[in-house]
Amino acid sequence: MIHFEDVEIGQVRESDTKLVTAEEIIEFAREFDPQYYHLDPEAAKDSMFGGHAASGWHTAAMMMRLMVDAFVGKTASIGSPGFDDLRWLKPVRPGDVIRVRSTVIEKTPSVRRPDIGSVRFRTEVLNQADEIVLSMISIGMYRRRPALASG
Amino acid sequence: MIHFEDVEIGQVRESDTKLVTAEEIIEFAREFDPQYYHLDPEAAKDSMFGGHAASGWHTAAMMMRLMVDAFVGKTASIGSPGFDDLRWLKPVRPGDVIRVRSTVIEKTPSVRRPDIGSVRFRTEVLNQADEIVLSMISIGMYRRRPALASG
Repeated sequence: MIHFEDVEIGQVRESDTKLVTAEEIIEFAREFDPQYYHLDPEAAKDSMFGGHAASGWHTAAMMMRLMVDAFVGKTASIGSPGFDDLRWLKPVRPGDVIRVRSTVIEKTPSVRRPDIGSVRFRTEVLNQADEIVLSMISIGMYRRRPALASG
Repeated sequence: MIHFEDVEIGQVRESDTKLVTAEEIIEFAREFDPQYYHLDPEAAKDSMFGGHAASGWHTAAMMMRLMVDAFVGKTASIGSPGFDDLRWLKPVRPGDVIRVRSTVIEKTPSVRRPDIGSVRFRTEVLNQADEIVLSMISIGMYRRRPALASG
């Protein structure tokens, strides 16, 4: 298990890839973001996206799944308070193959709790052309190793 | 249609409410965030959440749906570049009834494009006890009224 002490600035972790389908884009949009450029591939051609595109929240949810599959279970994490500076940089299209790349940019031991620390990552979703489609600063709370926490 | 000129600092808009069910929490978690405290109401009792709780990304997606139903179609919006400072402040539980409250905190005409402007909102998701469960700064790009943009 990766604890706070094992994390180093500059460390990079990457997820597996995921193929995004039109059916998934429409299904998510019907439930959570029913705007025509997410729901209707034909009508979307005349939208600001210039074609069918996933909801930004769908991209974020797929990012979470890629991170859970790749990283969770390997880290002594106790969750996240949130994230900063999320930007949707490019549309995610049907047929795109996306993946997540997460780089450690900061780590801070907790002042109030000697058993945990906070880690900040630049987390990016990339497509098959290596274009960054989503970027954000994610925050994870990690446990410290018991021996070190008491020392 | 609400244009950039119609937006004033301090304006508040509220969505309708939504009942959150255990089935929805589990369904979202299966697809996007398969961690045990989202998937298994019994096992979740021993988690950091102390009971079954929605994925934070599910809460965000439900927020988007409430905003689409309440606001989109009424605003001359051309989308959003992203969000800042999202924080998950309290768990969302089965049986919770959530709503969105969004307050205008800043508006900035575009320097490069005289036909649009950017509006920043403090956007909050509240539960039936009026507790804020999610808070973020959302950003919307609004069209300016043609007459004013050309004047």
